[in-house]
Amino acid sequence: MSNDDSDDLVFKALANRTRRQILDQLRNAPQTTGTLCDMLPELDRCTIMQHLRVLEEAGLIVVERRGRERWNHLDALPIHGLHERWIGPFAAYAVNMLASLKREVEQERG
Amino acid sequence: MSNDDSDDLVFKALANRTRRQILDQLRNAPQTTGTLCDMLPELDRCTIMQHLRVLEEAGLIVVERRGRERWNHLDALPIHGLHERWIGPFAAYAVNMLASLKREVEQERG
Repeated sequence: MSNDDSDDLVFKALANRTRRQILDQLRNAPQTTGTLCDMLPELDRCTIMQHLRVLEEAGLIVVERRGRERWNHLDALPIHGLHERWIGPFAAYAVNMLASLKREVEQERG
Repeated sequence: MSNDDSDDLVFKALANRTRRQILDQLRNAPQTTGTLCDMLPELDRCTIMQHLRVLEEAGLIVVERRGRERWNHLDALPIHGLHERWIGPFAAYAVNMLASLKREVEQERG
C-alpha cells in the first residue's frame, strides 16, 4: 500500500466524529470493546465494532487479544506523521507558541 | 461552528490527496496561486482554485491578497490541534522516539 493510500485510510477514518470520539476514549489508556460500549451507550455494539474495524485498518488502533477480551490501543504514529509532514521538528516550537496565544486570546474573549 | 463541525471540514479537506499535495507545496513558504499552478501542471487552474477554497474553508490555508496576487499560506494550527488532542505534550517525546525507531527499522529492512 502506498503512503497516499494509507493516508487516505487515516483521513477517512478520522472524518467520522464517532470514530474520533472512540479515539478520545483510548487517549489515556487502552480499553476493552466491552468497556468502550459502556462508555458510548448511545451506540450499539455492532456499530462500535464496525468503527473499530475502520480504525484498525487505518492503523489508528492496535488490537490485542487477551483470552476472550479484545483490548483496543490508540496508535498515535499516523497522527504524529501528519505533524512531521506539515509542521516538522523546527516549526513545532513556533506552532506551540501560536496555539497557546490563540487559547489565551479565546479565554480573554470568552 | 462547533469543534466537531470544524474537525469534519479539516478531515474532509485532508482526505483528498491533491489537497495534501497542495499543502506539501506550501510547507516551506507561501505561494501565489499562479506558482501553485506551475508546480502542479497536471491540474488545471480551475481545479486548483476549487481545492484551495476547500482548504481555506477548513482553516488549513490563509489567503493574503497583495494587489492582483493571491498568496496562499499553510496554517498548521488545525494539524497541531490533532496532535494536542491525541498525543499531548507529555506523550510527544515518546511518540517521537517511536517514530525514529520505526524509520531506523524500515531503513535496515530496505
